[in-house]
Amino acid sequence: MESAPLSRLCVHTITTKPLVLDRAVEAYQQAGVAGITVWRDALQSLGVKQSAKLLVESGMKVVSLCRGGFFPGVTQEDRSKALDDNRRAIDEAQAIGAPVIVLVCGAVPGIPLVEARKQIREGIESVLDYAKQAKVKLAIEPLHPMYAGDRSAVNTLGQANDMVKEISSPSVGVAIDVYHLWWDERLEREIDRCGKLGAIMAYHVCDWRTPTRDLLLDRGLMGEGCIPLKQIRSWVERAGFDGMIEVEIFSNEYWQMDQIEFLGKIKAAYIEHV
Amino acid sequence: MESAPLSRLCVHTITTKPLVLDRAVEAYQQAGVAGITVWRDALQSLGVKQSAKLLVESGMKVVSLCRGGFFPGVTQEDRSKALDDNRRAIDEAQAIGAPVIVLVCGAVPGIPLVEARKQIREGIESVLDYAKQAKVKLAIEPLHPMYAGDRSAVNTLGQANDMVKEISSPSVGVAIDVYHLWWDERLEREIDRCGKLGAIMAYHVCDWRTPTRDLLLDRGLMGEGCIPLKQIRSWVERAGFDGMIEVEIFSNEYWQMDQIEFLGKIKAAYIEHV
Repeated sequence: MESAPLSRLCVHTITTKPLVLDRAVEAYQQAGVAGITVWRDALQSLGVKQSAKLLVESGMKVVSLCRGGFFPGVTQEDRSKALDDNRRAIDEAQAIGAPVIVLVCGAVPGIPLVEARKQIREGIESVLDYAKQAKVKLAIEPLHPMYAGDRSAVNTLGQANDMVKEISSPSVGVAIDVYHLWWDERLEREIDRCGKLGAIMAYHVCDWRTPTRDLLLDRGLMGEGCIPLKQIRSWVERAGFDGMIEVEIFSNEYWQMDQIEFLGKIKAAYIEHV
Repeated sequence: MESAPLSRLCVHTITTKPLVLDRAVEAYQQAGVAGITVWRDALQSLGVKQSAKLLVESGMKVVSLCRGGFFPGVTQEDRSKALDDNRRAIDEAQAIGAPVIVLVCGAVPGIPLVEARKQIREGIESVLDYAKQAKVKLAIEPLHPMYAGDRSAVNTLGQANDMVKEISSPSVGVAIDVYHLWWDERLEREIDRCGKLGAIMAYHVCDWRTPTRDLLLDRGLMGEGCIPLKQIRSWVERAGFDGMIEVEIFSNEYWQMDQIEFLGKIKAAYIEHV
């Protein structure tokens, strides 16, 4: 399978966490990275307005804002706070020109997963008009089952597709991340279904290391793990997706290295393995 | 829901890893634990024969031997070695009077999951006659998707049920472990299906901590995590299972405490939360 073109390479600011936003933009551009997905913490150094200005002037493609979500809560107050926070995220996405917000939907120990999914759906529906007015789309990101306890009650692409179908709005779709979904025997057919729903809004890559030394912060660079990246990309593209390919790696190991050197590795891994 | 009776309480030797087998048997009996599942490493201190003698004389119910499996391999030689090891496990199970061997089926980075599952099925079929002659049953244990990279390509109860159905032998069934399966929205119906297949051979409990600090060695005591234990037990019992309830906890934290005290906690947690 041919390499994906560099014009589709996007990097998440969290991937190069040690770089503040202006340094990240500069470094990405020097490395030939075309797109950027901005994590909300990266907006803090300059503030939203200045960050937006920097991004516009850079000419980089702003792919997504990460992240909204965390809808479930034990009390009504908790759930209301989550909605407020999602509206702020929508404001921020609009300000920086991000067409999509990635939703890490949330899970709370003590709330059964079925109930949590109900609260997630209600949460998305509650902020949907606000998102539409801002022309920002919402992408449900199904998370690996190892995060079902405290990060997301949506743990398969099938569940995300079901939710998209139930909500049935062109403003709500899915972010497909290979790290979370690679193990699922239903992945190929659910990617196909997601495409038919017109719902593939984002595609995230990295790799699954064996052994994985940390539940959160030990993602691998593409090619150093066991995820069949080219196969999954072929499924996503067959389903009609031709958008940016986003490199999202949380790694204590890589955050410790020189981030310019790391970007070089990302680019090489993207060309060879994605 | 009523507490499960103490007559169904079984503890895995790995749960109290610091205790050698004779100390474990003594401590379990003092704590009123009726059953024991023996991990193969626990047979090393006394050897298989002496261990068997100790277990018979104790009068404890030997529930399972843990563990066989790890069938997939890159070379034919690797796969043959795995079969030899499984035959040794069958010998050991027969020797200690364990009616069931739990199979951690295996996965190897670089072998696609579909191929790994094929090798697992072939591996089980290759040792099946040997197991039958020894009157030892084989229980496929689906493992959490976070182990799909290097421990098991069977990651849902649905996949385990499919494999049981394909192999179609009364000597091959499933070990249901809440830690691996609690997150799956299909769990209730797959437990039902497993019961209809006559295939529920073991039921393992512990809890899922939030946050979980280690991929392998941070299992929680029942009641200190987010697994709906009583609900899952009700499904398993409705599906016809009335066998032993096995406490299997790998925990660096608990292994550091006094193991007699830990057994007291296990018993209390079993009564209150299982």
